[in-house]
Amino acid sequence: MFDSARLPHDLTKEQFGALEGELHEQLLDAQFELASSAAKSVLVLINGSDGAGKGGALNRLYEWLDPHGLDTLAYEAPTEEERLRPFAWRYWRDMPAKGRIGVVLGSWYHPPLLARALGETTRRTFKQQLTTINEFEAMLAAEGVALCKIWLHLDHKDARARLKKITRVDGDDARPVVREWAEVDTRKERRRLAEAGVAMAEETSTGPAPWFLIPADNRYFAELSVGRCVLATLTAANEPSPPKPAKARRSLAAQKPLPGPTVISALDLSKTVDEKTYEEESDDLKARLTRETSRASFEKRGLILVFEGNDAAGKGGAIQRVRQALDPRRFRVHGVAAPTDEERARPYLWRFWRKVPRRGHIGVFDRSWYGRVLVERVEGYCDPADWMRAYDEINDFERQLTDSDYTLVKFWLSISADEQMRRFKAREATPVKRYKITKEDWRNRDKWGEYEQAVNDMVDRTSTSRAPWTLVEAEDKRYARLKVLRTIVETLEA
Amino acid sequence: MFDSARLPHDLTKEQFGALEGELHEQLLDAQFELASSAAKSVLVLINGSDGAGKGGALNRLYEWLDPHGLDTLAYEAPTEEERLRPFAWRYWRDMPAKGRIGVVLGSWYHPPLLARALGETTRRTFKQQLTTINEFEAMLAAEGVALCKIWLHLDHKDARARLKKITRVDGDDARPVVREWAEVDTRKERRRLAEAGVAMAEETSTGPAPWFLIPADNRYFAELSVGRCVLATLTAANEPSPPKPAKARRSLAAQKPLPGPTVISALDLSKTVDEKTYEEESDDLKARLTRETSRASFEKRGLILVFEGNDAAGKGGAIQRVRQALDPRRFRVHGVAAPTDEERARPYLWRFWRKVPRRGHIGVFDRSWYGRVLVERVEGYCDPADWMRAYDEINDFERQLTDSDYTLVKFWLSISADEQMRRFKAREATPVKRYKITKEDWRNRDKWGEYEQAVNDMVDRTSTSRAPWTLVEAEDKRYARLKVLRTIVETLEA
Repeated sequence: MFDSARLPHDLTKEQFGALEGELHEQLLDAQFELASSAAKSVLVLINGSDGAGKGGALNRLYEWLDPHGLDTLAYEAPTEEERLRPFAWRYWRDMPAKGRIGVVLGSWYHPPLLARALGETTRRTFKQQLTTINEFEAMLAAEGVALCKIWLHLDHKDARARLKKITRVDGDDARPVVREWAEVDTRKERRRLAEAGVAMAEETSTGPAPWFLIPADNRYFAELSVGRCVLATLTAANEPSPPKPAKARRSLAAQKPLPGPTVISALDLSKTVDEKTYEEESDDLKARLTRETSRASFEKRGLILVFEGNDAAGKGGAIQRVRQALDPRRFRVHGVAAPTDEERARPYLWRFWRKVPRRGHIGVFDRSWYGRVLVERVEGYCDPADWMRAYDEINDFERQLTDSDYTLVKFWLSISADEQMRRFKAREATPVKRYKITKEDWRNRDKWGEYEQAVNDMVDRTSTSRAPWTLVEAEDKRYARLKVLRTIVETLEA
Repeated sequence: MFDSARLPHDLTKEQFGALEGELHEQLLDAQFELASSAAKSVLVLINGSDGAGKGGALNRLYEWLDPHGLDTLAYEAPTEEERLRPFAWRYWRDMPAKGRIGVVLGSWYHPPLLARALGETTRRTFKQQLTTINEFEAMLAAEGVALCKIWLHLDHKDARARLKKITRVDGDDARPVVREWAEVDTRKERRRLAEAGVAMAEETSTGPAPWFLIPADNRYFAELSVGRCVLATLTAANEPSPPKPAKARRSLAAQKPLPGPTVISALDLSKTVDEKTYEEESDDLKARLTRETSRASFEKRGLILVFEGNDAAGKGGAIQRVRQALDPRRFRVHGVAAPTDEERARPYLWRFWRKVPRRGHIGVFDRSWYGRVLVERVEGYCDPADWMRAYDEINDFERQLTDSDYTLVKFWLSISADEQMRRFKAREATPVKRYKITKEDWRNRDKWGEYEQAVNDMVDRTSTSRAPWTLVEAEDKRYARLKVLRTIVETLEA
């Protein structure tokens, strides 16, 4: 593939000058439009051999575009902070907001390519990493992040010659911003890198995120080409989005459910535990939980607990019991409220990615990314096509976590409508608890059936072998708390 | 996943009767709309355990929908005709036209599941097959084929009990239409089938093509659920398509190319061969070609030759020389003209799929599926997003062929604009050749530069390790014909 990038180019400085003016103007116009509509963000991935002029291309983009709307995201070897989290975390953390352009040096392609070239991973593992990247990029595209994937190509010989020159000359703009391939040294490693590059081009050049291989033998040609690719991506991103279809027509959820059981209605809510049993078991479980999370081996794992449930089902109380058994320095609860402006400007998973705990720590989500397929679905905050696609995206996200040695435990705490009413009334009567109940809680009760269906579908579609849901009969608080503790302990012990 | 399908259902005949009427009406309305707009087609995949009522659900769809717009596509063990071609050929062959609904019994999921259950394939191979299926289904969705993937679920015990009953009772509607899982017999095989089913649900339930797992313990519930899934798919398919974006804004191709070489301009068209060398070499190559295609081992392979090139570049003459060396009973040339009505009503690759030769035969395409990224791109017959996506789809299609032991050899025959002019004039002056030249040929000459760019991009993006392009300097006919023959012979000998 991309044989044309191996041909020699001889664009002169004069030709460059003649072409640059119009491109500069067009780029600024397109960037202005992107910023004003703030409907999408753009990520420009500048990849390529050492010495191919990645830094020069970056600098040129800073000349042509308004630097205020431009972020450089440069990644070298992972920092300690980054090594302690899943592979993709560093890229997620820096995701530019809608209306902005991020230029990525050292993208998510580089670590897998390097590992493959050095023989640290097998060909098969590398292919799987490419599949994961495809899923990640498809999700970004669907979430309004337009990708411009550039590879600056230089033959190995040319690259070496150029690097030598750079180390002699001490000009700032000639120094490569990121030195990435220095470790790929032997002929065997170079052959593996070349082979991996072909596989990368063949597997990850997709409709929404195609590769652009740009010859880097002539810097004028290379820099103009980079500018033109960015312009094409910007103009495509500035296309007005198609109008949303009529919601009511799109999905099964629009139809009234058939009479039949759901995973929720099938629960036996009459289960109870007496106080004495509760005290004994709870002490035992907490001790085991403390033990499991104090092991040296736990340092290499992360634990993520997801709590979802009916309003007033006792999520807070259950989390409190878990907290009592854990080292407070390593335990953090994230309550999920309405998204902030900053969060709304990015893919919906972003606000959860930024809260992924480092390994050895425990992150608790009191409500979570499942809001997309629960409240956003039921209240119509997003389109059926969006939440339908979210099941798959959430499964991919959770697989990235479990692949990075995180353990996920997900709870749905279930109570009956009657019990909820009793708890609401009790809360209203108790001064210190009155703040816990809002108009929204009462409103949600009116959509009990729709929520039940949404929960049923959520469990059906996201209870995977790697990250299963645990349904908790929460009518009796003691029973619920024990089941939560027991599930966590048994998962960790397994 | 899909735990809710394991819950017991007890819908009564009366409840069924009360609910059926409205569904029936809605289905007919939606089908009528689908047929009148003829913008999309719908494929309903009815999968599931033996005895789960696949036949009953199919019959019910025939009651509820207008049978004139409905096709049953039932697949059992492959026929000889099917075994001689790539795996996906049988499904391609039957693809319903736009406006129609196809109901598939024994879909593309069944052979991989069965092979995995019987231990004929590894877990890894099975996962790769699922990835291929995802690519295939994404392509169908992008090409206007809406999928409704249904799995009728029955526990193993229930399924066995029901099958016993069926063999006793001789009622027509109770007999399973397709008996598929009879071979899965031992406990180990059943365990593998269950595990593969989980992987299938987790990997292939995507945004555009989600799975619907329907409990089959109660036939009223199951049949109504099938009807509702079909209705949801129909209404989604009937959504008006979003308006196409302004073409000029979408892609790099809209920008005037930078001055620089292309894979075409880099060709050395001055190469010639004298008549004597030509005769000798050509005889030798033809003899070797005859030998290679007469081997017993060739029976297990298929050979596909793709000829693209400038108008009057000598595709016909080159094909003629290949023909002379081959068994006429096994050699077929497909000239590609404008698509027929029947072809236009289906995904653009359909008309090529139906012409894939059986193994042991040789299929020649005189122009091919590359029309999408050549003439359709340059003439604006399709949207930039469509031809951009086509590179990836074509690579997937060709990988399916090479994975099925087909050899692909792809030629671009290149001549200069001047030489083309000479040949056009010569043709016009020769009575028997005058029919070969049309107004369109002259018009295409005006877009020489755009075509060159399109060819360059095509070669860059579809010259893969499995199916590389061969660029043929065709200014001298003898040189071109020898290069074509030599490339085919050497590919077969390798």
